[in-house]
Amino acid sequence: MEISYFVAMSLDGFIAEEDGGIDWLSMVAMGDEDYGYNAFYAGVELIILGRLTYEQALTFPEWPYSGKRTIVMSRGGRVKPSPDIEISRESPEQLAVRLAGEGVKKAWMVGGGKLAGAFRQAGLLNDFVISIIPALLGAGIPLSPGGGRLEPLTLLDVERFRSGLVQLHYKLPAAGG
Amino acid sequence: MEISYFVAMSLDGFIAEEDGGIDWLSMVAMGDEDYGYNAFYAGVELIILGRLTYEQALTFPEWPYSGKRTIVMSRGGRVKPSPDIEISRESPEQLAVRLAGEGVKKAWMVGGGKLAGAFRQAGLLNDFVISIIPALLGAGIPLSPGGGRLEPLTLLDVERFRSGLVQLHYKLPAAGG
Repeated sequence: MEISYFVAMSLDGFIAEEDGGIDWLSMVAMGDEDYGYNAFYAGVELIILGRLTYEQALTFPEWPYSGKRTIVMSRGGRVKPSPDIEISRESPEQLAVRLAGEGVKKAWMVGGGKLAGAFRQAGLLNDFVISIIPALLGAGIPLSPGGGRLEPLTLLDVERFRSGLVQLHYKLPAAGG
Repeated sequence: MEISYFVAMSLDGFIAEEDGGIDWLSMVAMGDEDYGYNAFYAGVELIILGRLTYEQALTFPEWPYSGKRTIVMSRGGRVKPSPDIEISRESPEQLAVRLAGEGVKKAWMVGGGKLAGAFRQAGLLNDFVISIIPALLGAGIPLSPGGGRLEPLTLLDVERFRSGLVQLHYKLPAAGG
């Protein structure tokens, strides 16, 4: 199973300002340019969210993952039920094993950063689409939330956009490969 | 005057491990490939170092900036004298004004990170050559040492190398431009 991390970050590795703000991303907004998002989203069968990211999504005018199977992971926290989601109390490993058994081929780890970090440390994030915004942010919420280990990646693709955004696509090398 | 920052970082924005270690950079070592270093170095008239980076360079088997004018900046610390260097007690702004007056066209801010951050916050770093190593490091010394402000950059160039290293070249947009 492929679990993808599709995220934009500043050149200095921050995915949001310290308060979670992402207004600075608007600097690459250009008409119809979606930086591959719609194609990526269409290829994803399932969304994985942490509890806080889910609660943030609930504040949006409409549910952003409509029609897409969505799993909210929380080991112990109270998760507001909704017909749009399934709640999982599993570990990342348990969830990955179960979903692979159900035949899921491609999931999107939306975040937040802590959940993504737990998946990464378990070696379960294996596809990375990182859009580098042409800006230094100086401080903020880092792509890697600390800890972890050295994880060599294989570069698949580099795409340069007119706005100055550069999208890098990596995969985790196959275990033992 | 152009002051360049030429540095390698992990995809998650770290230029070294927490103890300063850079052994992981060897993953992109490939025969004669120098990732543009020699051409860059040849174009630089002058090297700017912080005190700790200078002390580290003194431990190398040979002085790494031989024949190149080198300035070690330290506001108050004791700097070991050497015929290879000039010592500056100036602020980044004072140094930049003085060097521009002397006709210097291109300098390399080698670092460390704190000195580079001070130059960046003063708007004096205006050329960025960032080599992205195909790896997540998880933790370490960040490219941006915290603080600072949003700094939009202009992408000049993207170069992809066989090792999976991607080199991104940005400049600071001209003030008011």
